[in-house]
Amino acid sequence: MNNYDVIIIGAGPAGLSAAIYLKRAGINPLIIEKDSPGGTLNKVKSIQNYPGYTEQSGLKLAFRMYSQVEALNIKIVVAEVININKDNLFSVETSKENYAAPYLILSTGKVSKKLECNNAKKFEQNGISYCVTCDGNLYKNKDVAVIGSGLSAYDAILYLSSIANKIYLINKEQTFKYDIKNYKNVEVKNDSKIEDLIGEEKLEKIKTNKDLIKVDGVFVCLGEKKNAFYYENLNLKADKKGIIVDHNMQTNINNVYACGDMISKSLYQVITATSEGAVAATDIIKKIKKPVK
Amino acid sequence: MNNYDVIIIGAGPAGLSAAIYLKRAGINPLIIEKDSPGGTLNKVKSIQNYPGYTEQSGLKLAFRMYSQVEALNIKIVVAEVININKDNLFSVETSKENYAAPYLILSTGKVSKKLECNNAKKFEQNGISYCVTCDGNLYKNKDVAVIGSGLSAYDAILYLSSIANKIYLINKEQTFKYDIKNYKNVEVKNDSKIEDLIGEEKLEKIKTNKDLIKVDGVFVCLGEKKNAFYYENLNLKADKKGIIVDHNMQTNINNVYACGDMISKSLYQVITATSEGAVAATDIIKKIKKPVK
Repeated sequence: MNNYDVIIIGAGPAGLSAAIYLKRAGINPLIIEKDSPGGTLNKVKSIQNYPGYTEQSGLKLAFRMYSQVEALNIKIVVAEVININKDNLFSVETSKENYAAPYLILSTGKVSKKLECNNAKKFEQNGISYCVTCDGNLYKNKDVAVIGSGLSAYDAILYLSSIANKIYLINKEQTFKYDIKNYKNVEVKNDSKIEDLIGEEKLEKIKTNKDLIKVDGVFVCLGEKKNAFYYENLNLKADKKGIIVDHNMQTNINNVYACGDMISKSLYQVITATSEGAVAATDIIKKIKKPVK
Repeated sequence: MNNYDVIIIGAGPAGLSAAIYLKRAGINPLIIEKDSPGGTLNKVKSIQNYPGYTEQSGLKLAFRMYSQVEALNIKIVVAEVININKDNLFSVETSKENYAAPYLILSTGKVSKKLECNNAKKFEQNGISYCVTCDGNLYKNKDVAVIGSGLSAYDAILYLSSIANKIYLINKEQTFKYDIKNYKNVEVKNDSKIEDLIGEEKLEKIKTNKDLIKVDGVFVCLGEKKNAFYYENLNLKADKKGIIVDHNMQTNINNVYACGDMISKSLYQVITATSEGAVAATDIIKKIKKPVK
């Protein structure tokens, strides 16, 4: 068994930030990542609201964060987590070796349900967005479609209402249950399902089972797939939005922390994820450094 | 009177971040700053734990955040806030003009009580630090002094205990009220007051009323001066650490938000400040965009 002070699962912005704070405090973390460092950030074409960088690709920002982790000689293992057990320590079984630590930080992000229709691949990150806070500003005075039927579609409409020229809601249900009648630039298309995305290089139109609509972009609000089932045997409390944490990012299980996109919170952004990683790390640092009575 | 959607007081990382999020959502903020954008960050010689930048000067990071704000055409007024009154709107009286808005974000930071002794100016940012989380890592296996008598001195000792070789606590009281007997590398100097900092270019020694001690750096933990009294007539709730806010960064007064170093929280860092600014902005965005019933 390989023992560490803290095991961080997931090397997105939250996990990398936690690792930086831990290591600089003289504590030895292990990061376990199943894919490549950066997480969802790697798939972001352009990020314009991370304070300190006017504009860069998500890949570049992820690489920069990873470089910082590397410069601190923090160990990253590329492996899939299969199971976690709580004994004296938390033991983490992976596709490679097994590891153990008294503290866990979970930061495995979330996976949005993808738009599935003709040409969805072609316009990925180039006309299709999964985040209005991130990309809404790119569609100033333009026409956009919001695809969804739930609260996140409603929130997207609110956010876009004073930015976009015209917003089409593509709603698969017979009615939309949220009140949007005061938003004069929203047109609701009920009982509609997207079939095709049309355009030469840029997205120009969408085709539904009922209409052909000119738009410059679509915002997909179809909810999330569950990510990382392996920690379910820890019995972490969660609500619809994610794992519930306290102000120190601790879950209902003592010494298990969670941060980033996988928790229940009000804002899902790189800047909030990195902050939460730092906060989780700081609480662990305090616990580790407290004298044993 | 000049009306805005939101008035942000203080252009440190928290205020700049809030402005970026508001403006990108199509909302028009005004930033009022009495000095130069960046706040305390401008005085930081080297920052090594802001995810995305391995190392840079605080001045540079502040400038980068400011450039982002400038690129979004966000208005900044350089003026001192004299008074705030709550009427229908919040009206902000400054040394220049008066401004009004339905939402306020306070982000005026905090001011650490400075070390006062001979040569304190000479070693400012070059041997003297006010933040262990920021600079502790620079003193790996070195000898340092912690100057203070309260909880923040105790927290600094805990943080440094596994990093520094030797820690001298320079305590002006007769005893130190926190239990640090398990920290074998800490030496307490009670009834001690620092008189002089000695060194050619780098700090080499400190002189107290009792001892001459070889150290590579000193951490000053003397507490904070109150910053920005002007909002006291808003009757904001605060504890010893700062203004009390909820998870959306709202204070006890509806539509008044606070973020950054001035609030009561567990971690005072650039990364937490920028995150809090984004969270405050997001809550205001939601309120502004909600339909009027």
